[in-house]
Amino acid sequence: MNPLPDSSRAAVFHAPNQPLTIERFPLPALAGREAIARIRCATICGSDLHSYYGRRLSPVPSVLGHEMVGEICAMGPEGACDFQGRPLALGDRVTWSTVWSCGACYYCTRGLRPKCEHLMKFGHERIAAGRDLIGGLADHCILREGAGIFRVPPNVPDTVASPANCATATVAAVLRAAGGVESQTVVVYGAGMLGLTACAMASARGASNVIAIERDPGRAELAGRFGATIVLDGSAPADEIRQQVLDQTEGRGAEFVLEFTGIPEAIECGFHLLRFGGRFVMAGATFPARPIALPAEQIVRRLLRLEGVYNYQPEDLATALDFLSANVSRFPFESLIGGAFPLDQVQEAFAFAESARPPRVAVLSASPRS
Amino acid sequence: MNPLPDSSRAAVFHAPNQPLTIERFPLPALAGREAIARIRCATICGSDLHSYYGRRLSPVPSVLGHEMVGEICAMGPEGACDFQGRPLALGDRVTWSTVWSCGACYYCTRGLRPKCEHLMKFGHERIAAGRDLIGGLADHCILREGAGIFRVPPNVPDTVASPANCATATVAAVLRAAGGVESQTVVVYGAGMLGLTACAMASARGASNVIAIERDPGRAELAGRFGATIVLDGSAPADEIRQQVLDQTEGRGAEFVLEFTGIPEAIECGFHLLRFGGRFVMAGATFPARPIALPAEQIVRRLLRLEGVYNYQPEDLATALDFLSANVSRFPFESLIGGAFPLDQVQEAFAFAESARPPRVAVLSASPRS
Repeated sequence: MNPLPDSSRAAVFHAPNQPLTIERFPLPALAGREAIARIRCATICGSDLHSYYGRRLSPVPSVLGHEMVGEICAMGPEGACDFQGRPLALGDRVTWSTVWSCGACYYCTRGLRPKCEHLMKFGHERIAAGRDLIGGLADHCILREGAGIFRVPPNVPDTVASPANCATATVAAVLRAAGGVESQTVVVYGAGMLGLTACAMASARGASNVIAIERDPGRAELAGRFGATIVLDGSAPADEIRQQVLDQTEGRGAEFVLEFTGIPEAIECGFHLLRFGGRFVMAGATFPARPIALPAEQIVRRLLRLEGVYNYQPEDLATALDFLSANVSRFPFESLIGGAFPLDQVQEAFAFAESARPPRVAVLSASPRS
Repeated sequence: MNPLPDSSRAAVFHAPNQPLTIERFPLPALAGREAIARIRCATICGSDLHSYYGRRLSPVPSVLGHEMVGEICAMGPEGACDFQGRPLALGDRVTWSTVWSCGACYYCTRGLRPKCEHLMKFGHERIAAGRDLIGGLADHCILREGAGIFRVPPNVPDTVASPANCATATVAAVLRAAGGVESQTVVVYGAGMLGLTACAMASARGASNVIAIERDPGRAELAGRFGATIVLDGSAPADEIRQQVLDQTEGRGAEFVLEFTGIPEAIECGFHLLRFGGRFVMAGATFPARPIALPAEQIVRRLLRLEGVYNYQPEDLATALDFLSANVSRFPFESLIGGAFPLDQVQEAFAFAESARPPRVAVLSASPRS
């Protein structure tokens, strides 16, 4: 373990499409149960790209990056604990919930930590003096007391573990909302990072049929390697997609549809793929779009359920890490990283992620390895 | 107990708006575990009125009436059992699930008896020779083996028990889909028979706030007597209704919205009354209407859940009867019966139900009381 430096580099996002600047921020003295993690790997999520390229409003200045793996390199006088309350040690390889939640407010005490009244999201907040190292595109990240920290299983490489606290944990929340998929037909709409992970998780949980719907040929091909038993062309007319799903399900439709595109036409198409009593879990619609049009009579007469998932509970991150540990050799997760750049080439990393559009691009800290 | 007659009267529905004819059908010899119930009371449900007045397509000829209480007056050679498998005795006062389900098909074995592949609905089927006494507007009803029969608690009068197997059990299914309402805010949209029952059931289960929304002043007044803590005018603009619900919930919105009108504008208004993580249970939309328009982004970001309920599981009828037994003196259920007619005045009963629109009108069999 190297001694803790006085300051840390971070890539600062000032305005859409403007250069990210590498700046130095002092590393503070820690109080209570605070900790500092040295970032080993951060991955650029689609929402980082949306922020950087101005497709969604984000507070600035900020330090982007919320998918990351680090190692504990400093702790406050009272030590630090993981989410289960177990003491952490210097050098522990960890990840943490993207959402910091207080655990005590109206929503936290009702099982809705993603809607904590005092919520802070790593990689999403305007930075200020003394509150700056809170994003993944940096050498260090400060973990306030109460951060939902989890140890990364030893067999999961940094680049595979890095998306766990966003993509994988969200998919774990989607599957939790769906319920048991064993021996069921699961439709996965959209085969980006989340959809591919959902194919793999549904497959690992024993779904008899995992039907991916994706219009991009490269992603469609990947879906087959991530557990999809059949991949349908998402650019086909909705009626044709529906008929193909009926053909796969003895004419009944799918028990589960998991939606990751957020596109109104895809949501409406997905809705009509459900069998009686089917469950539709939506996670993709996180951007403004036209309202979706649904026949209420069918929701009622067909006993359908629709549910939205956004962010996740800390426990979902534990599920995500367990899943990755158990399946890291079964599905080609490492192949989802289309490129890796050091922090001082973060600008090139964004340009590559935006143009080549691999599921993820990694940014590896240039700090000396411990 | 009077001896079983050779035949039974039934009111036959031949075509919308045509007179119901009282006809006689032979009472068959029973096999196995079949039973015959002498109808003590049937209540005219809104859907009977929709069928009779041609507002929905119904198979004809049929014997309408699916809300009813009877007493066991004959059993097959092997006796008959209630849904829990307990032997029934002659004279037992019973009701039974509107839906007969086989218990063995794809859907029945997946907890979806309302979608049984061999489903039969009392009061909804085309009648044929030997399959005619299957509606409530008759002196007798034949209960095929497997009918979901439940004993009526002694303290529940016939007129209160009669809607149990339609309105009350559906509301029990709605509350089951919603989840625990104790100490929560529950919005009940529409205060007809189901909405009033929902107000009472939510109140009995400890909801802290039961907000009824109803545009009819008479029903609005009734809602207050059925447990609503506040009644909002359903004819007000949606924004105004929303503000009133926010005012009642510290600005958060309601944990639960239960929808019984089926009107697209009401569904859309109700959706916007939910707080983060809120649950919307829809039971009213059983007729064709324009699609509802919902913002998918809000379903996702606000972690909302929408679920349709149609018919119910047999267990919900047990819940309904327990609820009525425990609350028959707490809420004025008997006042929901706006009139009572003998079977030979069934035509007048329909005309009165359609014109005066009380929550229910009863049809009492003219058979001698046992």
